[in-house]
Amino acid sequence: MIKVGIIGGSGYTGVELLRLLLPRDDVSVQFVSSRAHAGTRVDAQFTSLRGLCELQFSDPASINQADCDLVFFATPNGTAMQQAPELLAAGVKVVDLSADYRIKDIAVWETWYGLTHASPDWVEKAVYGLPEMNREAIQSASLVANPGCYPTTVQLGFLPLLEQGLVATDGLIADAKSGISGAGRAASVPNLLAEASDNFKAYGVSGHRHLPEIEQGLARMSDQPIELTFTPHLLPIIRGIHATLYAKLLPGSSLGQNDLQALFEERFANEPFVDVLPSGIFPETRSVKGSNTVRLSVVKPQDRNTVVVLAVEDNLVKGAAGQAVQNMNIMLGMEESTGLLAPPLVP
Amino acid sequence: MIKVGIIGGSGYTGVELLRLLLPRDDVSVQFVSSRAHAGTRVDAQFTSLRGLCELQFSDPASINQADCDLVFFATPNGTAMQQAPELLAAGVKVVDLSADYRIKDIAVWETWYGLTHASPDWVEKAVYGLPEMNREAIQSASLVANPGCYPTTVQLGFLPLLEQGLVATDGLIADAKSGISGAGRAASVPNLLAEASDNFKAYGVSGHRHLPEIEQGLARMSDQPIELTFTPHLLPIIRGIHATLYAKLLPGSSLGQNDLQALFEERFANEPFVDVLPSGIFPETRSVKGSNTVRLSVVKPQDRNTVVVLAVEDNLVKGAAGQAVQNMNIMLGMEESTGLLAPPLVP
Amino acid sequence: MIKVGIIGGSGYTGVELLRLLLPRDDVSVQFVSSRAHAGTRVDAQFTSLRGLCELQFSDPASINQADCDLVFFATPNGTAMQQAPELLAAGVKVVDLSADYRIKDIAVWETWYGLTHASPDWVEKAVYGLPEMNREAIQSASLVANPGCYPTTVQLGFLPLLEQGLVATDGLIADAKSGISGAGRAASVPNLLAEASDNFKAYGVSGHRHLPEIEQGLARMSDQPIELTFTPHLLPIIRGIHATLYAKLLPGSSLGQNDLQALFEERFANEPFVDVLPSGIFPETRSVKGSNTVRLSVVKPQDRNTVVVLAVEDNLVKGAAGQAVQNMNIMLGMEESTGLLAPPLVP
Amino acid sequence: MIKVGIIGGSGYTGVELLRLLLPRDDVSVQFVSSRAHAGTRVDAQFTSLRGLCELQFSDPASINQADCDLVFFATPNGTAMQQAPELLAAGVKVVDLSADYRIKDIAVWETWYGLTHASPDWVEKAVYGLPEMNREAIQSASLVANPGCYPTTVQLGFLPLLEQGLVATDGLIADAKSGISGAGRAASVPNLLAEASDNFKAYGVSGHRHLPEIEQGLARMSDQPIELTFTPHLLPIIRGIHATLYAKLLPGSSLGQNDLQALFEERFANEPFVDVLPSGIFPETRSVKGSNTVRLSVVKPQDRNTVVVLAVEDNLVKGAAGQAVQNMNIMLGMEESTGLLAPPLVP
Repeated sequence: MIKVGIIGGSGYTGVELLRLLLPRDDVSVQFVSSRAHAGTRVDAQFTSLRGLCELQFSDPASINQADCDLVFFATPNGTAMQQAPELLAAGVKVVDLSADYRIKDIAVWETWYGLTHASPDWVEKAVYGLPEMNREAIQSASLVANPGCYPTTVQLGFLPLLEQGLVATDGLIADAKSGISGAGRAASVPNLLAEASDNFKAYGVSGHRHLPEIEQGLARMSDQPIELTFTPHLLPIIRGIHATLYAKLLPGSSLGQNDLQALFEERFANEPFVDVLPSGIFPETRSVKGSNTVRLSVVKPQDRNTVVVLAVEDNLVKGAAGQAVQNMNIMLGMEESTGLLAPPLVP
Repeated sequence: MIKVGIIGGSGYTGVELLRLLLPRDDVSVQFVSSRAHAGTRVDAQFTSLRGLCELQFSDPASINQADCDLVFFATPNGTAMQQAPELLAAGVKVVDLSADYRIKDIAVWETWYGLTHASPDWVEKAVYGLPEMNREAIQSASLVANPGCYPTTVQLGFLPLLEQGLVATDGLIADAKSGISGAGRAASVPNLLAEASDNFKAYGVSGHRHLPEIEQGLARMSDQPIELTFTPHLLPIIRGIHATLYAKLLPGSSLGQNDLQALFEERFANEPFVDVLPSGIFPETRSVKGSNTVRLSVVKPQDRNTVVVLAVEDNLVKGAAGQAVQNMNIMLGMEESTGLLAPPLVP
Repeated sequence: MIKVGIIGGSGYTGVELLRLLLPRDDVSVQFVSSRAHAGTRVDAQFTSLRGLCELQFSDPASINQADCDLVFFATPNGTAMQQAPELLAAGVKVVDLSADYRIKDIAVWETWYGLTHASPDWVEKAVYGLPEMNREAIQSASLVANPGCYPTTVQLGFLPLLEQGLVATDGLIADAKSGISGAGRAASVPNLLAEASDNFKAYGVSGHRHLPEIEQGLARMSDQPIELTFTPHLLPIIRGIHATLYAKLLPGSSLGQNDLQALFEERFANEPFVDVLPSGIFPETRSVKGSNTVRLSVVKPQDRNTVVVLAVEDNLVKGAAGQAVQNMNIMLGMEESTGLLAPPLVP
Repeated sequence: MIKVGIIGGSGYTGVELLRLLLPRDDVSVQFVSSRAHAGTRVDAQFTSLRGLCELQFSDPASINQADCDLVFFATPNGTAMQQAPELLAAGVKVVDLSADYRIKDIAVWETWYGLTHASPDWVEKAVYGLPEMNREAIQSASLVANPGCYPTTVQLGFLPLLEQGLVATDGLIADAKSGISGAGRAASVPNLLAEASDNFKAYGVSGHRHLPEIEQGLARMSDQPIELTFTPHLLPIIRGIHATLYAKLLPGSSLGQNDLQALFEERFANEPFVDVLPSGIFPETRSVKGSNTVRLSVVKPQDRNTVVVLAVEDNLVKGAAGQAVQNMNIMLGMEESTGLLAPPLVP
């Protein structure tokens, strides 16, 4: 029986970890911490878990974390960088769902996140937890930096094109749309139903923290510097990200729709959580609701030289808790898809 | 390995049966029939099932149904009454999700459904599949009439009060609200997102087909004739029913809030799929999204003599496919909750 | 040119007053106050008003309110009872959209609102602003207590039955459902889109502040004590209330569906903002979106003795700002429907 | 009093024309035709218009259209091209909300619409009804081709950049998202609330009929051939389009954020229905709900050479019926904004 703990369990990624882990009989959740709710039952906050969870939220200070094989950080940015090193030193593996260990360039991270990094040495040792790019390194990692929600779809969507060096790297565009659970569970006027439903808007157009994370990943795929225009938008839905990606084929390219389709199908043929749709079928966010799958389409409109890639994920699953469990499975030598194969909830 | 078939698999209850049955390793879905989609892959209609289902929709005429241990009818009203008898004669058990076998009084059924019943003898032998009332009879049934979505919440909500004879039976009120998936997957102007979202309305106020089904069940519980005012409403959500029930305590009753709370908790203490919430906590539909649980609250406002019961379910699960699977588990001697314990999808 | 002011203009009722008043050329909005936003432009908070409003939010302290013919209070409960008397003393008329002056029994008000009333003498002088009941008194009122959103639909729905003494007054039921704008514009976790959308629940079942207001009004109509069970629910829509009302005809009543239909049509024949739908047509909330109209249906299901009334309104218009403007029109001797006749926004 | 008629009045653009025209006292709607609903009252189909409209739907065959000053076609594509010429010959002005007269190149139109054009001579004489580009020609037009919903936002968004020749014309991208009312009021499974809500997807990625219309307009602005990648998506909202536009500044451009902001503000300074938001503020669809305004933002992210323009409109108003009324006002010599200045409905 694997023993795990969750630090910061009262947000959406925390409860999603519970949804995925509680039904498993090979994993035991030892604790769920929450400073705000310490001492109250988890199922008093999340009625949906009544009958499935006897835990109370623990005070972070009172937990014996070293008793765990692996600990998830589902905390705001800035917490894991302070608390993870002690756990790691005690031999506990860590999956950090926050942004603390995602960006290798400390100066870049500090600029975008407005903090001084507390454990820069662990940034170097951390493995970026996108299994489709990094599976081997994750197997032996002590610390995995779980990718952001947008970065997962954008990187997977561009991956085949950039790995093969088929498109210009200086004019990439990612027009991304996210369900509102990506904004977290804090009280906020703009995220009220009366403000955000029956509505749609862009935000962070001038600069969003996921931009440097994505550019780092794309540069690594292509071995070239990247210039990406990244425009996030807010969808009036709970779960789901749809990324619409645009790239220009290099001059002289003779790749047609069929070639692109074959390229994508081959690249992801053995990936358990990436589904390339048949040519002419476009993905919808609900088709992955509650599941760890990313669905992709690739299109070459009017046979011109701009390639369009469409990618959907559930931002709380493949974009957060599901990918964290996938990483846990890999790190602990378990079958990678264990506990992650329930069908999406449609309709 | 249990072998099952699904007749009428292209609607919402059909795909929901697949969502619940496909992940099981003790059940094999032999066929899914659909006249309209015969010959096409199931996952071409339901992208969410890609990778989980290799079946094609079959033509109903070409199926060897007798090869199954149990067959589900997820068909419009009027089909099962014609096709089930042959299967039953061949020793195949049947769970009918339509209304064909729910109402014992043939004349009442024919009036409300506008059809002549094709197999009235089987109506008599059919067992009404509400396990919380009828578990023993279901165990030995060949044919189970799966309850309607509204009737499940309304009957379970009134059950403790009527069984104990605590309330007047001639002035019951059920103000019920359903998500739009209850209206099925047929093209329809009123159910378009542009018509039904950001909107709310009652329908069938003068008379709804679930009224006689509910009154039959309530009369059986109380051994008295019942007069129920039943008002269904359409919610701009996909899944979920909320029934708000009103009953008057009999004159002279001294039952207080605590007595009612204890009554409900005791009645359902051993029911795996009925959750009585603590006093003062009211249920919300999302707390059962994707799950087979009904959550109930009982309230005595202002300590006056009207009792209010609140009940929620997922109309496609406990209100249809989940209860059908629960019935299958009971009929085939399996653990009743097998395959039905995944946590609800919240948020 | 009529001069008006708005105290507390940064919430939903405040901006709704602006939406209704700004296009008028017979009314000039002199100021909109907001402690939180003082000094910022109104259209910076409400982009929808760009080009229509040059005002800044004022600090309440710095306003010369006496310069107005009439002032609206769109403030939280407890503010108008302190500030209105000074204005009234200066000859300024007041429409209070909060609950401060709605309930005549000071002790009852203080119990439900948890405050000591600061101007109980003005409670007695205040006129309850439901024009369909109180038009004449409003004409000469200095202070109008604008009704609550739920109370408007519930009172109008029961009005013909209670005025004529046709139903039992001790077992009335109002099952009411409100769009989430009724909860106001404050940051709140339960009202986030990720919590409240695709969801439905009851709240305040044990007791809601609108209960004593409604019972006071119903008692006045019927000249009898009232016992109402009032159950509010939260709809995942922005605007709209649907009240489903239940009443029992008195024993021996011979009233049929046609009689009830005629009763309702006659009672409201001359009301500009009450629309009785044809028999068999049920109202939907969107049919009054953005408008000051209440639409009603009356039904006698199965010809039994329970009467069902369905009533819809836009909670921000007839349930708040629109009714306030209607009251202003009456108080100032203008045509009652001035500025209130724009068609609802459908779809 | 201006006399107008509406041909094809039972869809969303038809009822929206009524919403805008009925309150006017300078315009009289003579008839609304609908083959499907001929003989029934308009307010039986659209309850929201009860009390505002005494008309019945007319049979198209029985109308004396020549009695009108102007007739709107709110019909499916292929109708106006057959019926408008007779009206025009009789001296009646026409605003066609369908696509029949939008594209000057008949062969291109026939390819994309799959029809043989019935009145190609009138295509040449028709004026494209985008007042911000074409105001003078509209003033003297007999036949105005009202722009499509997507083309209105995309053309207005690119207008300042292309008129001034500042960006590359061969790599333009329009990532556009539309509310579902754009799909019309026909029964359809994919547009059911149970399918389309809590969901988001792209469609027509390989080619959408609005592409040639947009490219024609952009080419005219820039006097150069255009290559646009146009990706429409379906939003789970009723009204609203958000277009996110991408263009590359020409090599050597020294334009900064402030220059672009100034460019946009100046270009639209005198336009009554185009609102350029302050730098750093991004538009949301609800800010124009029910109104004829387009709101625009221009951004130069990271000071790189890709310019992002954000544009929102209400697809039924500025994207259809509102722009049609604006064109009517211009064609008939009335003040352009008459009847179009009501504030948006927010929240």
